[in-house]
Parts: sequence; C-alpha cells; structure tokens
Amino acid sequence: MNGRTTMMDFLEEPLPGVGTYEDFNTIDWVREKSRDRDRHREITNRSKESTWALLHSVSDAFSGWLLMLLIGLLAGSLAGLIDISAHWMTDLKEGVCLAGFWFNHEHCCWKSNTTFTDRDKCPEWKSWSQLILGHGEGAFAYILNYFMYVIWALMFSLLAVLLVKGFAPYACGSGIPEIKTILSGFIIRGYLGKWTLVIKTITLVLAVSSGLSLGKEGPLVHVACCCGNILCHLFTKYRKNEAKRREVLSAAAAAGVSVAFGAPIGGVLFSLEEVSYYFPLKTLWRSFFAALVAAFTLRSINPFGNSRLVLFYVEFHMPWHLLELVPFVLLGIFGGLWGAFFIRSNIAWCRRRKTTRLGKYPVLEVIVVTAITAILAFPNEYTRMSTSELISELFNDCGILDSSKLCEYVNDFNSTKGDDLPDRAAGPGVYTAMWQLALALIMKVFITIFTFGMKVPSGLFIPSMAVGAIAGRLLGVAVEQLAFYHHDWAIFSGWCSQGADCITPGLYAMVGAAACLGGVTRMTVSLVVIMFELTGGLEYIVPLMAAAMTSKWVADAIGREGIYDAHIRLNGYPFLEAKEEFSHKTRAMDVMRPRKSDPPLTVITQDTMTVEDVETIVTSTTYSGYPVVVSRVSQRLVGFVLRRDLIISIENARKKQDGIVSTSVICFTDYCPLLPPSSPSVLKLRSILDLSPFTVTDETPMEIVVDIFRKLGLRQCLVTHNGKLLGIITKKDVLKHIAQMANQDPDSILFN
Amino acid sequence: MNGRTTMMDFLEEPLPGVGTYEDFNTIDWVREKSRDRDRHREITNRSKESTWALLHSVSDAFSGWLLMLLIGLLAGSLAGLIDISAHWMTDLKEGVCLAGFWFNHEHCCWKSNTTFTDRDKCPEWKSWSQLILGHGEGAFAYILNYFMYVIWALMFSLLAVLLVKGFAPYACGSGIPEIKTILSGFIIRGYLGKWTLVIKTITLVLAVSSGLSLGKEGPLVHVACCCGNILCHLFTKYRKNEAKRREVLSAAAAAGVSVAFGAPIGGVLFSLEEVSYYFPLKTLWRSFFAALVAAFTLRSINPFGNSRLVLFYVEFHMPWHLLELVPFVLLGIFGGLWGAFFIRSNIAWCRRRKTTRLGKYPVLEVIVVTAITAILAFPNEYTRMSTSELISELFNDCGILDSSKLCEYVNDFNSTKGDDLPDRAAGPGVYTAMWQLALALIMKVFITIFTFGMKVPSGLFIPSMAVGAIAGRLLGVAVEQLAFYHHDWAIFSGWCSQGADCITPGLYAMVGAAACLGGVTRMTVSLVVIMFELTGGLEYIVPLMAAAMTSKWVADAIGREGIYDAHIRLNGYPFLEAKEEFSHKTRAMDVMRPRKSDPPLTVITQDTMTVEDVETIVTSTTYSGYPVVVSRVSQRLVGFVLRRDLIISIENARKKQDGIVSTSVICFTDYCPLLPPSSPSVLKLRSILDLSPFTVTDETPMEIVVDIFRKLGLRQCLVTHNGKLLGIITKKDVLKHIAQMANQDPDSILFN
Repeated sequence: MNGRTTMMDFLEEPLPGVGTYEDFNTIDWVREKSRDRDRHREITNRSKESTWALLHSVSDAFSGWLLMLLIGLLAGSLAGLIDISAHWMTDLKEGVCLAGFWFNHEHCCWKSNTTFTDRDKCPEWKSWSQLILGHGEGAFAYILNYFMYVIWALMFSLLAVLLVKGFAPYACGSGIPEIKTILSGFIIRGYLGKWTLVIKTITLVLAVSSGLSLGKEGPLVHVACCCGNILCHLFTKYRKNEAKRREVLSAAAAAGVSVAFGAPIGGVLFSLEEVSYYFPLKTLWRSFFAALVAAFTLRSINPFGNSRLVLFYVEFHMPWHLLELVPFVLLGIFGGLWGAFFIRSNIAWCRRRKTTRLGKYPVLEVIVVTAITAILAFPNEYTRMSTSELISELFNDCGILDSSKLCEYVNDFNSTKGDDLPDRAAGPGVYTAMWQLALALIMKVFITIFTFGMKVPSGLFIPSMAVGAIAGRLLGVAVEQLAFYHHDWAIFSGWCSQGADCITPGLYAMVGAAACLGGVTRMTVSLVVIMFELTGGLEYIVPLMAAAMTSKWVADAIGREGIYDAHIRLNGYPFLEAKEEFSHKTRAMDVMRPRKSDPPLTVITQDTMTVEDVETIVTSTTYSGYPVVVSRVSQRLVGFVLRRDLIISIENARKKQDGIVSTSVICFTDYCPLLPPSSPSVLKLRSILDLSPFTVTDETPMEIVVDIFRKLGLRQCLVTHNGKLLGIITKKDVLKHIAQMANQDPDSILFN
Repeated sequence: MNGRTTMMDFLEEPLPGVGTYEDFNTIDWVREKSRDRDRHREITNRSKESTWALLHSVSDAFSGWLLMLLIGLLAGSLAGLIDISAHWMTDLKEGVCLAGFWFNHEHCCWKSNTTFTDRDKCPEWKSWSQLILGHGEGAFAYILNYFMYVIWALMFSLLAVLLVKGFAPYACGSGIPEIKTILSGFIIRGYLGKWTLVIKTITLVLAVSSGLSLGKEGPLVHVACCCGNILCHLFTKYRKNEAKRREVLSAAAAAGVSVAFGAPIGGVLFSLEEVSYYFPLKTLWRSFFAALVAAFTLRSINPFGNSRLVLFYVEFHMPWHLLELVPFVLLGIFGGLWGAFFIRSNIAWCRRRKTTRLGKYPVLEVIVVTAITAILAFPNEYTRMSTSELISELFNDCGILDSSKLCEYVNDFNSTKGDDLPDRAAGPGVYTAMWQLALALIMKVFITIFTFGMKVPSGLFIPSMAVGAIAGRLLGVAVEQLAFYHHDWAIFSGWCSQGADCITPGLYAMVGAAACLGGVTRMTVSLVVIMFELTGGLEYIVPLMAAAMTSKWVADAIGREGIYDAHIRLNGYPFLEAKEEFSHKTRAMDVMRPRKSDPPLTVITQDTMTVEDVETIVTSTTYSGYPVVVSRVSQRLVGFVLRRDLIISIENARKKQDGIVSTSVICFTDYCPLLPPSSPSVLKLRSILDLSPFTVTDETPMEIVVDIFRKLGLRQCLVTHNGKLLGIITKKDVLKHIAQMANQDPDSILFN
C-alpha cells in the first residue's frame, strides 16, 4: 500500500516495477482499489485548478462508459463474423454454391426463384457429388459426399489445432474457468491478449464448422473478455489498475453471453452469478449497457437473416398443465444425472490426459476425435446438421407448413383451427426421427466427454443443451402419443380430450435443455432468465424453474462442483469459491505458518537490520513478503513489506543512491535512529512499507478468516496473539486448508 | 462471538439474553453468521447419529425453500386482496352496483348484456346522483357526485390515519427506507410485526381508494417483508438468527415488487440493487423462487380480470427510429430534474414537519391534503380516475376501437391496414385531453410533494410514473402532430412519410414514466428490467435505457441521494451506503475514540479487576463494549466484551454462583491466577469474551476501514499501533465521520 502514502505525484510510479505483479500471482485487491481511489482523488482535486484538468476529470468519469460502448461494438461484430463464417463453412462440408462460393446454402437458395417449401433445394446449390459426378443419386454419390464431409471436418479441425498449438496455446478450451480465476484476482499474462483473441476467433469458427460436439458460447465469453482487456489499454485508468480492469472484464463477460444467446439480461446475471468475483453495483449497470450494445450490434449484422436477437426463437401457443410438472421434474432429474455423470467422466478423462502420454499428442487426439465424430455423424441427419440447428428444430412447435420429419403427423385437417394443431397420431416420419434422435443422444453423450478439454476452442452450452433437448423431445412426443391414444385416462381427462392441442413436445425439449445445462454448469437464475429471454414469455418460467431446481439438487447431491469449478481445481488455480461456505471448526492458529515444528517466522526489524541482512533473508527464503516488527524480542507488528518491492528498492538504491553499501542500516520508521557519523548512510524504505497490514488473532475461526479473504480480496493476513506477531496466512494456505478439509489433495493448489 | 467457542450445546443459549440485541441497535453480522454456522455444523454432525437427526437435517435444509413458498403465497394473496378491495372502494366513490354492492364498476357491468363498447355504461351501475336523485344529468347531479366523491375520500383517509395512529404507527409511509436500514443490520422491533402487517394492509387499501396521490408499490414491499418476518417465526433457524432472517427479508422484498408490478425478475433485481445489503447468491435463487410464486399466486387470483401478470400490459406495433432518441433523452432530462426537485422539496417539507408544530397534527394534515386532492381531482377526468388506470391509458397505443378521448383522431379509414393505424391529425378530443393532462401534471407534481411522508401508507412509484407518463404522452402527441403536419421536413423524411405509422405516443409515456421513476429512486438495471417485463419485448430497451441513464446522470448532478437514502438520513438511521465510495484521505487515527484531548480508552484487564471495578466501569460509562487487555501498562489486546453480556453475566453469577462478591476477581484467561485461599472465588468470564475482535492499525486509510465495516458488517473495530491498543471505531463513528466529510451535520446520526 505504498501507493497511498507516497504517491502524491500519482501519475509517475515512484520506481518502475514497484506495485506490479508477477505472472501466475494473485493481486492485492485492497491495494489496487486504494491506488485507484488515490488517482481519482488527485484528478478531482486538480479539476478545480484549470479547465483542462476539469475536462480531464470529466473524460475520466465517462471513459468507463465509452469503454463499455467499444466492448459492446467489438464483441457484437466479432460474434456476427463468427456466426456468418461458421454457417458458411458448415455448409461447405456438404456442397458449394455456384452463384458464388461465398454464399452458404440458405443464402444461395434465396437468390433462386423457387417456392417457399423447396427453399432448400435450388439448382445453384450443388452437393459435392453433384459437382464432381454430375448427379446426387446412388450409393457412390452418397459415399463421395460422406468422404468429402469427413475430409472437410478433418481439415478444419487440423487447422484449428495447429493454429492453437503454434500461435496461442491459451486459445483452447472454453476459457470460462480461467476467466473466473482471473476475475478473482489471478494474473495469467497473455490469456486475454491480442494473439489469443485473433487465434481464438479463427479457430472457433474452424472448430464449430468441423462438426465436433462443441459450441461457441463459452469461447465467445473468452473472446469478449479479450476485447475488454485489449480495449482497456486505451485508458490509463484501466490499463494500470488490475482491480478496475477486472470490473471491465466482468462486463465483457456479460457482453459475451449476451451475444452468444441474444440475452442481455441473462448475460448480466450470468456474469454476476457464475463468472464474477467482485461485482459492485456500478458494474452491474455498465455490464448491462455493454451487453445491450453487443446484442444490438449483433442484431444489426443479422447473421441469422431473420432479424431475431435470440439464437433459438420459440413461440408456443398452448399453456402447460399442472400435471405436466411430473415429466418436467423427470427431465430435471435426467439433467442432474447427466450433469454429474458428464463432470465426473470429463474430469477423469482430462486428468488422464494430463498425467499420461496421451497429453503429448494433442493434434492426433483432435484428428481422431474429429474423424470418429464425422464418421458417426454423417449417416444420421440429426447429427449431420449443426448442433444449434438441431436444437432449433427440437424446440420448434410443429405448425401446418412444417416439412420436417419431426412434424410428420397423421393429418386430420378437419379439426384444425387457426394456428392450433390438435394432438395427432405420429406418422412414420416421427417414428424414424425418434430412432435417429435416440442414436444421436447416445452419440452426443459420449463424444462430448472426450471433446471438451481438447486443444481447440470448445464450449459446453450447446452440446449440453442438445443432449437435454433430444431427451426432452423424445419424452414430449411419448407423452403426446400417450395422451392421444389414451385421452380417456383419468389423468388426461379434462385437459387432453380428443382433438385438443394439449402437449407441446417443443416445450419439453426446451425444459430438457435447461435441465441439462443446469446440471453441467449449476447456473440457476441466469439459466432461467436466458431461457425466458429466448421465449419472451413468463408463461414457461415455472416449468423451466422446476426442471432447473430439480437438476441442480440432483447434481449437487452427487457432486458439489460445477464443470467450471472442477476444471479450476484440476488446473490448480488459486480460486476462492464465494458460494461455498467454509464449515469446519478450525482456527487461524491451525492454518498459519510457521507450524509448531517449523523454524520461527522470518521477520525484518524496523531499524536495526543492514542491507546485507535483508538481502540474506530475501535470497534464503522464497516468501513473497515479510512482516516488519519493532524488535525480534517484542514481536510487535509495524507493517508488511513485499519481497518484490524490497528487491527493486534495494537494487535501485545501490545503483543510484550515494553511500548505500552492504552495511547500511535499513530503516522503516518515520525518524531514523541517529548513528555514529562514521557509519554509512541509512536506507529509508518507509515508502514501500504497508503500514496497515490485515491482522487476525490466533483464536479467530477459519470461517471468518475465509470470509475476510473472500470479501476483501486479500493476499495474506498476519496472525497475532495478545498483540504479538505469531504467524502469517496466505491465500494459498487458505486454499490448501480448504482442500484438506474437503479430503482433497492440498498440493493440487499450485499457485499463490 | 461467544457462541463460537462455548456453545457446544447450541440449542440452549448459555444465558438468556446473552447474544441478543436491544431495540434501535445494530447487529454484529460476523457473530450472527458464526452462530448460524455453529448451528448448521451441529445439525450436520448429529445427522450421522440417528435417522431422526438425519430427517431433522434434511428438513432444516429445505426449510428455507418452504419459507419462500409460504412467503410467496401469502404476499401474492395479500396483494390480490389489496388490489380487489382498492378497486372496489375506488369505484365506490363514484357510485354503487345495484346487482350487489360488493361488485366494482367493471364487474357490475360484466353481468349485464351490453355490447363491448358500452361496457362501462350499464343499467346496474348507478352513480350517486342516479341513486339519490334518480338521474345523472344536470348541474345538481354533478355537484352531488362531486360532494359524494370528496366525502368518501375524506372518510377513507380519516379512517386510514386514525388506524395508523391508534394501532401501528410504523404502518405509515412507504417503508422502503426503514427496510433498507433493517436489512443493513439495524433493529427496529415491531416494524415488521403482525400489527403493522394487518394495519398496513387495511390502511393501504383506504389510502389508495381515497384518491390521494400515492401508490401501493412501496407499501407492498413493506407488507411482503412483514409476511417474511412473521413466517420466520415458524422456523428456529430463522427466528433466532438476525442474519438469516435478513436473507429471508431480502427475498420477501423481491416478492413484494414482483406482485406490485407483476415483474419477478425486476423484483429480484430491485431487491439486489436497491434494498438489500447482504445478498449471497443462494438468496438470489431463493428470492427468484419467492418472487415467482408470489407473481403466480397473484395471477391465479386475477384481480385485474384479464389473466395478465403485469400491472400495465402494453403492446406496441411499430419499431422506434434512431432520431426519436432525442425526445427520449429530453424525457430523461425532465425525469432527472423532476427527481431532484421532488427529493429536495419533499425532504424540506418533511424536515419542516419534524421540527415545527405541523408534525403534531397528523390527522388534520391528512384530512386537509385529502380534501384539496379530492376537490382538485374531481373536475378533471384524468385525475379523477385512479392513478394506475391513468398510467394504463397513457401507455396505451391507440387502436381502431379505442373510445378514449386520447384516441380521438381524425379518422381516415382508407389508409388503415390491419392493426397499424397511420399517423393522423389530432381531433378535438385529443386537444382537450392535452389541456386536461397538462393541468393533471401540474397538480400531481405539487400534491405528491406534500403527500409522501404523511401518516398513511404511501408509495412513490405510481405518482412518479404518472408524472412521467403524462409528460411523455404530451411530448409524444406533440412529436406525432409535428411529424404529421411536417412530414416533408428533412428529419422526418424516410421514416415518417404521409400515411405511415411512425410515432407511438404510448411509448413516449412509458419512457417518461421510467425517466421520472429513475430520477426519484435512482434505480437503474431493475428499473429497465421492470419496464422490459411490462412490455415483454427487447425492442424498447434502448429507449428506456437512454432515458433512465440520462435521468440518473441529471439527477445525480444535482444531488447524489435517491429519495430513500434522503429519508434514511432525515431519520438519522445508521445506514452505511454500499454504493458510495468514501474518497477522503483520512486515517483510522483521525476517527477513533478517544481523541487526543479525551481521557484514555476505558479498558478491562484480563485477570486483575474485581467485580466491583468492572461494575464501576459499566455504570460510569455508556459504551456498548469494552476491550480486554493483558495489563494497563502493556495495552496488549486480548479480546472484546459486550456491555450487555457483561451485565447479564455478572448479575447472573451474583445470584446463582456461590462465593461471587464485589471483591471477586474477574478472570478472562484460560487459566486463572492462583489467589490466596482467603480471597473470594474467581468469576470466570472467558465464555463471553470475543477472542477475535477486528483490529486495524492507526495508519489504515479510512476508505479501507469503511470497506471493512461495509463488507463484513462490523459493529466496532479496534485500533492498534505497533501492537498496542490505541482506540476504538464504532459504526456510528464511521457514519459521523462520513457525514462530516460530506459537510453534513454529524449529529444527525442518531443510533448506533
């Protein structure tokens, strides 16, 4: 907290390097916030002096909003670009447009003058067999198409993994676990840099187009956070302050979810609930602004060509019946089981990848998984289409004009009134679709476990939702047919009489998707709000909530961690979970160092040690800071000094300050002791001393210590007994203790 | 924190009274949360012992959800009851239903077989003149109706104020400032009690029906919180713990807003943004559940008779144009100015009421204001109708069938297509309506200032929204006519050509309402989300956000405080605002007591003072707690003991423990000193000693101290220098210091 006491000239750091952090270290929130307040105070004070300073003060106040606007615009544009490219490249696997190779299937057929129902079949669009063989019929054509499909998929995924491996290793995965860790105050340099942004954007398109079982939602959050981090460099306020920058990143995460689903409110709540650590209310309002700008930018780019903001627009006509809560809760249980199963299997697989030779061949792994996925996917039309199209089709309520196989019911046009179709007997198309969907479900369930965690950008939202949507649709159709054939049963009487439209299988698909997503990520409010924004009606909130709640309870009963927390722990990041309460009856004295058998705590005295003494301490230990005491005997605490600041200051003084030699006394007090004139000059280091270190007594329960670390964002805390310094607790000690108490390996916490 | 160390038998308090609080005092969040964790730990440990204990543990875990369900059901039912009664009694001022006096105007006419357009005119419904004179025409009939209107209004408001004054003085006002204070950890006994609930529910109906310029939204939050508090008594977990109970109250506040507007998500965000202090994520999910249950309970009661969840359902057909942002920002500026003006005038008036003789005649005040309101309101049809009806009408987009005066445009049926009406010239009805609305605006603006703060339940949302909606509609119609008559102007060309439907005056009304509400309450995200839930479309979020942002900026530039914060300060409650950053460069030593000129800090030594010494200290000072030190000379801190606990323990020991006399030594240590056998037995009080008091050094900047108080919810904090105890800072000291730094009267903080 040197900044607070000495930085009157706040714009120049007293010494370059003092007050910065090393890579893979945790920031000190209190210090960062103090520095920002100093800066703000200085600008406010100066603003009274001149018009220029006043303008500076005003522009400083509005720079946050400007930054949010820029983030929204950039994130929205990138999302639009990704959508359009991924759409085009996904279609490229099946064929090409003669009118211009840069058109995707849908655009290509817009140009042609065909009727509405045949929109997908137009002469300009040629499948690969049509292009090469001149016709699209027969076994050979099928095999050629199959072959081209697999080849394109392999090419895309090979390119993606090579780019990630060669240029930006941080671009792989979903990025949300790391962003959570970074937002909690950890530093991973380059994780949100410009190379990561460029490579992640490109490889995300490639990975999605390759047909792997992954989504673009998580990576979009990473992309948006990269945008936020890079744009921070435009403003001194955010560039130089790690705490302020994290406020911006929280808002950027909201913008990312906002463009991923077209759900700005859901995005803000997702950032609040799932990603962010320090979320002051000012940030809430700004995040909302960024999320809105991003959503509207995306909409004006209009990548889906339908002016819709949301990814899956659904409109249902029928209300649901109270009895339907039973299947909805069943879907919730399924979602919870799937979530718990997925997390366990995926973590087990990722751990195997980390610890065995498997991890040494990431390219081969991607190629193999892509090949298996593509070979299995092509024969089944529900896995051949892109996963978001599949979800869209499953959510859809069958209308009269729907040509999808899922809507091939036995038609009885006499009883149709308006838009409401009565429940009907399923036709052969529906039965085929059911089988295909069941196979697709099994394939998705297993392939996703191996896909998430590979060295390509991969999101989990879409595959999870697909699993749930398939299960939901299957259940929905089953209930619908049950109600149709047995409408005289007591439970159906009254609301499912003959000719009534009472079951909406699309709603079941949506509820199932929410349940599975909830089981995997353990989102709650944000999940329901995102789903609510997709449908735009409060009608269906109760089914969604019932499923989400059941799913969370079931999944929590099996394992407490969501997928992101599990990955954080797998990677050993120092993340102090804000949601879990620490419930063990230990005290600060049980956690602090030194332990009873250890040598005593390394301390520095305030005015008796020489430069040499201190240098010996610094070189012989690796602690990141040292308490300063009045004297070794009294052990009364004066302050805390950081190792990095100490090294930089001594080095600097030796170089630049006259008379500083190894025998110079280092003095941390206000008034340095009078020394005999023969002795070398004194090195005054009060400016780097933190005079207000946090202390707790040795009797303080650990639950309170954990609370203090969490809420104040500390790096370390000193422990006293009756006023005497006893020991120190660092964030790593706290995390190790929590891991130990939860019967986990405390050495899994790698960083401080 | 005695609870933590000694309460192994957690279900029985060690001594009755120890660990409880006095009225008008602040709770210690850390202690309360510790106690709850102890309790939880104990139940979890026991659950392994027997099936019964396991069941207890499961029921304990689910009691929170059950409580939420009950709160939702009760709050929803009460809101329905209030709506129905208020609707009926409002109509009673104008007439009575012959088919049954308990029908309101609308219900009465549903029974009759009249056509759609004449729904409001049916033979069963008799105005007072029709009932008494037999006809409704002529000046005398008008005067009779006028007279009856005023008389009913006076009767309702007189009854309301008498009930409040006689039975539950806490039932007056909106209640939100007090709930904010209570949620921040203050204790006001009876404020959320059953009498307050009963009286507030009844008087709210009376006050709303009397036609005063007030709304039911704020009081509904109070009613919901009363429900929450009362239902807490059913569960030990919540009854006995002040911190847990406040979690429930936060959720109840969300349920209150949810039923007030039919906006569950907005309600949760309102609770998060505006009301709550400590809002863990678990609470967010539960609040959402309570808000949903409440909203759906209200909908199944269906008080508006239209199956709509929301209070003002609006559906607009036309998108807005980018240029329209100019009038929307103007509305924002108006809203901000209105907000600042209202807060200043209302606070000035309330201060006058508090300090002059005016405050001694609350009944007379209510009568006079009601009389003035009723006399001014009757002649103008827009003030005669209830305010929520007025807002509803102003939000409404004119359709073809609308018979309202506001929709009396010059019709040109040739150019009408479907639902979209083109812009048309205003007819005479619109011009009349404009004049009447302008007069209504002036009346509402002034009368609301005098109404809010009277001794009847009164909410601010509806009057504020009415002011904004009127202003918005006026501006909207003006812009519409401008565009109609000057569609050849450059700014209108392209989007407002002749015969196009381009301006929606209802949208302007909605934007104006949001701006004014934002100016008064300084809500941000929750405001936009509530408005979004009313319209159900993301289309109009940008206009709403533009207006809300402008309004907040303008209002903040004039005065930082929202109306609730201003009322908290007026009443001197100890509320530590979480949103404002403390930005002054003072340190803990500047704020702590004793000051330099004061006598030294009163301390208790750990093992040398006698019962008499301690009693002398307790009687000669009024502090609520005392630090315990090793010895007066060393001033090394051991712990902190609360005055209340000390008095109760000594009293109890004197009564029940043998050999405790005035000369007994009080010992706070683990092992008490050996005394000569002749001396009286030692009183051991380690169990009431808090061994982990929070300490900061004297050099700690106040901004960090304020942060600690806020985030950890402390009551006091001890100040040390180099390990020696120097002084103490209480929450009151912090609040006084903040007031002083903001150039306000520090003595306005009344409570600790």
